[in-house]
Amino acid sequence: MSEIGIGILGGGYMGKAHSVAMASVGAVFNTTLRPRLEMICASSSDSAERYRRAYGFARATDDWQTLVNDPLIDAVVIATPQELHRQIAEAALALGKPVFCEKPLGASLEDSAAMVTAARDSGVANMVGFNYIRTPASQYARALIAGGEIGEITWFRGEHTEDFYADPQAPATWRTSGMANGTMGDLAPHMINGALALMGPIARVMAEVETVHKNRPGGKVTNDDHAQMMVRFENGAMGAMYFSRIATGRKMGYAYEITGTKGAIRFDQEDQNALWLYRMADPDAERGFRKILTGPAHPDYEPFCQGPGHGTGYQDQIIIEARDFLRAIETGEAVWPTFRDGHEVNRVIAAGLGSARDQAWKNINDY
Amino acid sequence: MSEIGIGILGGGYMGKAHSVAMASVGAVFNTTLRPRLEMICASSSDSAERYRRAYGFARATDDWQTLVNDPLIDAVVIATPQELHRQIAEAALALGKPVFCEKPLGASLEDSAAMVTAARDSGVANMVGFNYIRTPASQYARALIAGGEIGEITWFRGEHTEDFYADPQAPATWRTSGMANGTMGDLAPHMINGALALMGPIARVMAEVETVHKNRPGGKVTNDDHAQMMVRFENGAMGAMYFSRIATGRKMGYAYEITGTKGAIRFDQEDQNALWLYRMADPDAERGFRKILTGPAHPDYEPFCQGPGHGTGYQDQIIIEARDFLRAIETGEAVWPTFRDGHEVNRVIAAGLGSARDQAWKNINDY
Amino acid sequence: MSEIGIGILGGGYMGKAHSVAMASVGAVFNTTLRPRLEMICASSSDSAERYRRAYGFARATDDWQTLVNDPLIDAVVIATPQELHRQIAEAALALGKPVFCEKPLGASLEDSAAMVTAARDSGVANMVGFNYIRTPASQYARALIAGGEIGEITWFRGEHTEDFYADPQAPATWRTSGMANGTMGDLAPHMINGALALMGPIARVMAEVETVHKNRPGGKVTNDDHAQMMVRFENGAMGAMYFSRIATGRKMGYAYEITGTKGAIRFDQEDQNALWLYRMADPDAERGFRKILTGPAHPDYEPFCQGPGHGTGYQDQIIIEARDFLRAIETGEAVWPTFRDGHEVNRVIAAGLGSARDQAWKNINDY
Amino acid sequence: MSEIGIGILGGGYMGKAHSVAMASVGAVFNTTLRPRLEMICASSSDSAERYRRAYGFARATDDWQTLVNDPLIDAVVIATPQELHRQIAEAALALGKPVFCEKPLGASLEDSAAMVTAARDSGVANMVGFNYIRTPASQYARALIAGGEIGEITWFRGEHTEDFYADPQAPATWRTSGMANGTMGDLAPHMINGALALMGPIARVMAEVETVHKNRPGGKVTNDDHAQMMVRFENGAMGAMYFSRIATGRKMGYAYEITGTKGAIRFDQEDQNALWLYRMADPDAERGFRKILTGPAHPDYEPFCQGPGHGTGYQDQIIIEARDFLRAIETGEAVWPTFRDGHEVNRVIAAGLGSARDQAWKNINDY
Repeated sequence: MSEIGIGILGGGYMGKAHSVAMASVGAVFNTTLRPRLEMICASSSDSAERYRRAYGFARATDDWQTLVNDPLIDAVVIATPQELHRQIAEAALALGKPVFCEKPLGASLEDSAAMVTAARDSGVANMVGFNYIRTPASQYARALIAGGEIGEITWFRGEHTEDFYADPQAPATWRTSGMANGTMGDLAPHMINGALALMGPIARVMAEVETVHKNRPGGKVTNDDHAQMMVRFENGAMGAMYFSRIATGRKMGYAYEITGTKGAIRFDQEDQNALWLYRMADPDAERGFRKILTGPAHPDYEPFCQGPGHGTGYQDQIIIEARDFLRAIETGEAVWPTFRDGHEVNRVIAAGLGSARDQAWKNINDY
Repeated sequence: MSEIGIGILGGGYMGKAHSVAMASVGAVFNTTLRPRLEMICASSSDSAERYRRAYGFARATDDWQTLVNDPLIDAVVIATPQELHRQIAEAALALGKPVFCEKPLGASLEDSAAMVTAARDSGVANMVGFNYIRTPASQYARALIAGGEIGEITWFRGEHTEDFYADPQAPATWRTSGMANGTMGDLAPHMINGALALMGPIARVMAEVETVHKNRPGGKVTNDDHAQMMVRFENGAMGAMYFSRIATGRKMGYAYEITGTKGAIRFDQEDQNALWLYRMADPDAERGFRKILTGPAHPDYEPFCQGPGHGTGYQDQIIIEARDFLRAIETGEAVWPTFRDGHEVNRVIAAGLGSARDQAWKNINDY
Repeated sequence: MSEIGIGILGGGYMGKAHSVAMASVGAVFNTTLRPRLEMICASSSDSAERYRRAYGFARATDDWQTLVNDPLIDAVVIATPQELHRQIAEAALALGKPVFCEKPLGASLEDSAAMVTAARDSGVANMVGFNYIRTPASQYARALIAGGEIGEITWFRGEHTEDFYADPQAPATWRTSGMANGTMGDLAPHMINGALALMGPIARVMAEVETVHKNRPGGKVTNDDHAQMMVRFENGAMGAMYFSRIATGRKMGYAYEITGTKGAIRFDQEDQNALWLYRMADPDAERGFRKILTGPAHPDYEPFCQGPGHGTGYQDQIIIEARDFLRAIETGEAVWPTFRDGHEVNRVIAAGLGSARDQAWKNINDY
Repeated sequence: MSEIGIGILGGGYMGKAHSVAMASVGAVFNTTLRPRLEMICASSSDSAERYRRAYGFARATDDWQTLVNDPLIDAVVIATPQELHRQIAEAALALGKPVFCEKPLGASLEDSAAMVTAARDSGVANMVGFNYIRTPASQYARALIAGGEIGEITWFRGEHTEDFYADPQAPATWRTSGMANGTMGDLAPHMINGALALMGPIARVMAEVETVHKNRPGGKVTNDDHAQMMVRFENGAMGAMYFSRIATGRKMGYAYEITGTKGAIRFDQEDQNALWLYRMADPDAERGFRKILTGPAHPDYEPFCQGPGHGTGYQDQIIIEARDFLRAIETGEAVWPTFRDGHEVNRVIAAGLGSARDQAWKNINDY
C-alpha cells in the first residue's frame, strides 16, 4: 500500500465528485495505491482556496501549470472546461503523469486526436470519464451481450435526455453557447460511448441537430437543444439515438433498449439499480421482462453494498472510475475507457454533425 | 331506433372482432341504429358457414359480390386480405352502401387514392380501422395536445413493435411475403396514423427498411422485419418512429412519447389503461410523470365501465369503431378516420420507402 | 346450438354489463347455448322500458316475479340490490331455473346459507359473480399456485381498495348506509373470494372495521369506510387483507402479493393484463420479477384477442362469467364459483366482523 | 474547521459503511468538524489490523475499552453485535464521548432504556443508526406529511421485506438464532422507526410472529422468519406492517403506502430515488400518482448530485448520518434520531411480541 499524490483541476460539480471519490476509494475497494488529496486548481485563488478547504486538499492554486508541474503531484484529474482538456493533458503526459480526463475528451475532433497521440507517445495511464455506463446494471448488460445471452443483436435504441432547458424562458447562459456545451457536445458523448460499449463500433450515421429555442431571455442560443441519429453498427444492427436538454420530464434519461434474437435488455438511469431482461428461452407462458435489482451477483456492486437491493448512486460510479484509474496507474495496463475510446466517441459526433449538415449518411471511417 | 343490416367480409381475427362489436355496440352505447348481423363472407362456403354459426349471422356466402349486392345489406365491413380492399369498397360505394375498411386502406398508394376518390364521389360514410388510437388514454392524449396542455410540441417518438417473428427459426408463411404484410405494411400504418392523429401532418421523412432474417425454415422472406424513420412534422417538431415484428419481448408495443414546452405525455398500449402526464406547471419538488388511470373523466370510458380503473380492453376499441361507423351512417357526416386519413398514412409509407431506397429525405407532398 | 331465454333483474351498472355479456358471449366463445335477451326487470316500468330499449331485450317488467315466472325465461341473472338476492334466487331455483347471482351472495350469512340450501335442493346451475378473479392473469396465477410452481406458500397480502369516498366532503348516499354497502359488504367479498381461490380456505381471522368519516354532507354514515384483517390459511400461510373506499389514489386496487418457497406472484387489477412472477430457480444474477403480459398462452385470453398484449378489459370478465354460466346450464355440472363459494366468503366476513367487535381471533368454522 | 478523532467498533458491513462515511462526509457536506479515522476495533487483532489497513485508520485494537478510553478518540461509532451496544455506549457516555450506535439500540427493552438514561445523564450527543429513512425521498415524504400536504392520514402500510432466508435449504447460522437477529429484532426496527418518523407515535399493536422453517441444514432455527402487525397510531390512523426475511423476490422491500384525505404517498426502497405522490387537488381527469425523481428540490440531495435524477445510493444515507452526528457534536443539540427514538422503537417491538404471545392488543404505554 503506497500513497499517490492527486491533483484535481476544476472544483465545480465534477471536481467535487472526483475529490469525494479519491477520499473514499481506498476504503471502498481496499486499493493498493492510496490517494492523497495534494492540490486543487480553480480559476481564481479564492475559489481554489475555498475548494481546498471544502474537499480537504493540502494545497490550492489558480494556475494549472503549477499543479501539473508540482513534484508532489503524481497523477491529475481534469475537470475543467473542455477547451483546456488538451493542453493540460498534453503537459501532464509529457511529464509522464497519468491523466484522467472528463468527457468529452477534447472540445473538437482535432483536440481528441492530439490527446490520443500524446497518450500513446507518453505510455502512461490515461482514462476518460464516461461515468454512467459504470453502474452495476450497465456493466451487467455489457456482460450479458458480450456473452451472447441475448443472441445476435438486431436493434439498439439509446437516449440521453434531460430537461434543464425545457422551459423556453430559462435564460441564456454559457451553456447555451459553445459547441461543446450543446447536446451533441455535452449529452451525446455519454450515450454514444454507451452504444459503443454495449454494441461495438458504429459504421455509419445520419443525424438531425436542432436549436429549438433560438432566443432566450438574455441572448441568442448558439448551440443545439436536441439531436437524433439513425445509426448502423458494424455488427449489422440498426439503431437510433436521441439527445436532448429540452426533454420535459426527463431528469436523467440515460436509457437504452437492445433487442437480440434470444432476448432483450432495457435500462433507464432514472432507476439505475434495475436492469430489465427478457429471455426467449423461458417457457412461453412465463416470458416477460424481469426487473433484476442489482446485487452482489453483479459487477462492482458488493464493495458498496453487501446485500442486494441496497442501491448504488451516482457518486459510486465516480468511485469506480477512481478505482480503475488507480489500477491503470499501478499495473501500467490500459483500462477502459482510454483516450482512444474518448476519441471514438468524438468521431461519431463529428460524422453526425456532418450528416446533419449534408443531409446524407456518413461513414465513421471518413472521420 | 332502427335496424341496419351489416355484412362483414372476412371471418378471421378482425372479422370476429367486428362481429362481436356489432353484436355489442347497441347495448354498450345505446345507439340509435341497431346492427343486424345479416351476412358474413369467407373464402370458402364451409368456412363462411362456420363463421356464420360462430358469430351469429343470419346468412353466409363465399362470394363477396353476393354480399355487397344483397338488398338486406345496408353497410359493409371489409376485413379481407388487403389486395381485395379496393374492389370491394368501390363496389359497395357505387351502390351507396357505407364502408368500414380495415387498415391499411389499400395495399398500395394507388389503391388508397382510388378508394378516396370513390368515397368522395359516392358521398356515403367511409371509415378506416385504426383501432389502437381509440383507447380512452390515447383519445385523452389527443385532447390534451389539441388543447395546448403540454405547450408547443418539440419531439415525438412512436413505435409499433411486436415479436411474433423474433425467433429466426419461426417458419416462413404468407406473412413473410407480400409488401402489405411486412412491418411497413402491417404495423407501421397504426403508429403513423397515431402520429398524424396526435401531432398533425408529417412534412418529410427519412427511413431505413430491412429484412433481417432473409431465410426462414420453409423459404425466403420477401418483406421487411423492421424499419425506422426520422420525421419532421409540419408543426416543426422533430420525430422518430420504429416498427418491428422482431422486437423480442414486445407484445403490443404501440407506444409513444411526446415532449412539449409545458409538459410531456407517455403511453404504451401494453398498459393501455394508463396515460403518463408531466406538467411543468407543478411546483418543482412535486413534478413527476403522473400515471393517470382512465376512468369516467376520459373519452369513451364510461359506456364500458362506470368506475375508474376497471379497464377497457382491445375489443372495446372495436366497439367504439362500430359506434362511430353507425354515427357516420346516421348523421351523414364524416367521422374520423375516413378513407382520406387512411390515404394520408399510405402517403407517409410511400415516402418512407422512397427515402430508404434513395437514402435521402423525401417530402410527403411529393407523394 | 340452441337458444336460451335470459332474464336479467336490475338494469344498472351490473345489469348492463351482463346484458352486453349475454349479447356477446355466443360470438366470442362460439357457445352451444345461445342467449336470447328475453326480459329485463327494473324498479319502475319506465326505467325497465328504458333499459329494454338500450340493451336490446324483447320485453320489460317492474315485477321480479313476473320475470322469474315467465315461461320464456330459462335462466335468470340477479343484479338487484343485495336485499332481494335471496328471495329471487329461491323463487327461480324452486322453478328449476338456473341462477347467476351478483356478489355478495346474500346480504347476510343467514341469507347466503339459505341460498346454498335452495341451490342444493333444486339441483340446478347456480353461480355467483366474483368477476375480478377471472382475468387471464389471475386465472394463470391460480394455475401457477395450484401447480406448485411457487412452492409452499408462506404469505398472502390482498387488498381491494378504491377511493370513491376518499373526499370527506363527498355526500352521504345510499352507499353510506346499510351493512352490505360498506367496504366489508361491498369490496371485501371480491378479495376474500380471491384469497380463497388462490390460497384455499381461511382458518381464522382477526379484523378491524372502521367508519373514518362519520358525518358527511347530507347525513350520518352508518357503514364502514375501511377494514383490515390478519388471517391464517388452512395451509398454514399467514396473511393480511385490507379493504377501503377511502384509499386516495386507488381506482381499482384489487391487488395481491403471494410468497412461496420457490417463487412469488404479484398482481394489481389496475394493470390487469400483467402478472408478475419471480422464480428462485433462475440463476442468481438473473432473478427478478417478470412482467408477464397475458396472451394466448394464458387461460381464456385467445377468444378475446388472438395476439398477446392486446389486452382484455373489465367487460371481458363478465363475458367469461356468461360463458361459464351457460356451460353449467348445459352440462349440469357445478362450475366455480357456486353459491357454496359465495357463502364461504360470507362466513369469513362474519368471522371478521365478530373478531373486530370482540377484539379477538375467530375461527371460520364457528361461523 | 477542526479535527475530531473517530473510533469505530466493528469492522464488518456497517463498520465499513461508517468508515467510508467518515472519510467522505467532510468533502460532501463541507462540515466544520472534520473526522480523523483514529482507531478501529474488531474481535481479533488480526481482523482489526486488516480493517485498519483497508479503511485507512491510524490504529487498531481488539479491545473495545482500549478504544473507548483512548485520549485521541473524541467520539465513537458502535457497529458491534447488539449484545455489546449497552456496555460500550455506557462506558463512552460516562467519559463524555458522543456515541453513534447502530440499530437496534439495545438487544432488549431493558438495555435500550438504560442507554437512554445514560445518554440523558451524560448530556452528550447520541444517535441511533436508522439509515433507510434518510433518503431524500423519505425525508421529502416526512416533510409532505408534516406540512399537511396529504391531509389527515387514515391509513399506513409499511413493510421491511428481504429474501435472504427464503430458501428453506439455506443453512442455519448465527442469524437464525438470538432474538435480536430474527425479523423482529433485525428488520422490524427499520420500518417501525419509519412509521414513527412518518406518522408519529403508535398507540397499540396486535401482532403475529412466526418461525416458518423451524429446521434448516445445520440446526434448529430459534428466531422468527416473518411477522405482521395491525397498529393504531395516536393520530387515529389505522395501520399494518409486515417484516420478513423469507419474502422471495424482495431484496430491499423497505416500502410504505400512506393514505390521507388530500393525497397519498408511496415509496419503495428498491427504487429509492423515486417518491410517488397523489393529489386530490389535481383536476379529476389529471389525477394520478406522480413518480417524483429526487433532485435538488428535495432534502439532502444536492450535496451528492447537482442535477436531478442522478440518484443517491445506500452509502449516501450513511454519510448523511455522519453529517448529522458531527452536527450534534458541534452544536450540542439533540439531532434526530436520538437514543430516545431508538428506545421508542424497542417499546413497539416489545408490545408486539407481547400481543403475539397473548393474542391480544397491547398498548405501547404499558411498555
